[in-house]
Amino acid sequence: MRRIYSILVENQAGVLSRIAGLFGRRGYNIDSLSVGVTNEPGISRITVVVDADEYILEQIAKQLNKLVDVIKITDITEDVVERELVLIKVNAQPSLRNEILQIVDVFRGNVIDITRNSMTIECTGVQSKIEAMLEMLTQFGIIEMARTGSTALVRSAK
Amino acid sequence: MRRIYSILVENQAGVLSRIAGLFGRRGYNIDSLSVGVTNEPGISRITVVVDADEYILEQIAKQLNKLVDVIKITDITEDVVERELVLIKVNAQPSLRNEILQIVDVFRGNVIDITRNSMTIECTGVQSKIEAMLEMLTQFGIIEMARTGSTALVRSAK
Repeated sequence: MRRIYSILVENQAGVLSRIAGLFGRRGYNIDSLSVGVTNEPGISRITVVVDADEYILEQIAKQLNKLVDVIKITDITEDVVERELVLIKVNAQPSLRNEILQIVDVFRGNVIDITRNSMTIECTGVQSKIEAMLEMLTQFGIIEMARTGSTALVRSAK
Repeated sequence: MRRIYSILVENQAGVLSRIAGLFGRRGYNIDSLSVGVTNEPGISRITVVVDADEYILEQIAKQLNKLVDVIKITDITEDVVERELVLIKVNAQPSLRNEILQIVDVFRGNVIDITRNSMTIECTGVQSKIEAMLEMLTQFGIIEMARTGSTALVRSAK
């Protein structure tokens, strides 16, 4: 079961390691994780996407709540605005640039760097959109790729 | 000194915890970290932004290299295409929507959700652009925010 957790933490050294450790010790790898600052100084938000058994996830959530640096953990899977960012460096000989640009346009991506034989593309969206774009670009040869993993907010207003 | 590390790892349970732990044990907190899959199955890329003393960072890099799950660690600070993604939920009474939309347009962001009294905005860019946008939106009252942290690729073609 794919779940998305949004975890507010005190931005202390070691907090990320302890949180990742809780998942790791259970043998569950994290699909994606992103951590960034929030609008409150000293508070970071960690967004974790994990695919695991419901019972185990409940246990992990309980243990996360016990960590002193964890302010709040919310399972936001059901009511979420979710996006991820991907950077893709793709083979792009001059003769292929046009075709690649068309694909990038359709997915509302942007070309953010270009060399004689490559282009770097930035695109945001939900996971399925990113996957669809990647599938279209694979034919040209993907040189390198970096994905942020999902970041997410609850859809409803507080 | 702000450094950006790009770390290719085997996607094993526990690897993230060990990497975050290396930074945490030295008392250095990570500014941002994002982890996502790559185009090679079983391989993930972790992008870490950290602000610390050069000598200490060299030591940490050496220790990272010793971890079995770490395939490659590269300091890409000097030659980087870097982006981060932010989701911002901002107070938006109907009478203020127009003004907010103008700001979002200037920063080439997108409104991805709306309620009677809030809007959720998606924006990508380098850190300074994100900060500038946040500064403009603060006046309306930021309800919630989620940032992915930087993800990055080397600028030059391999």
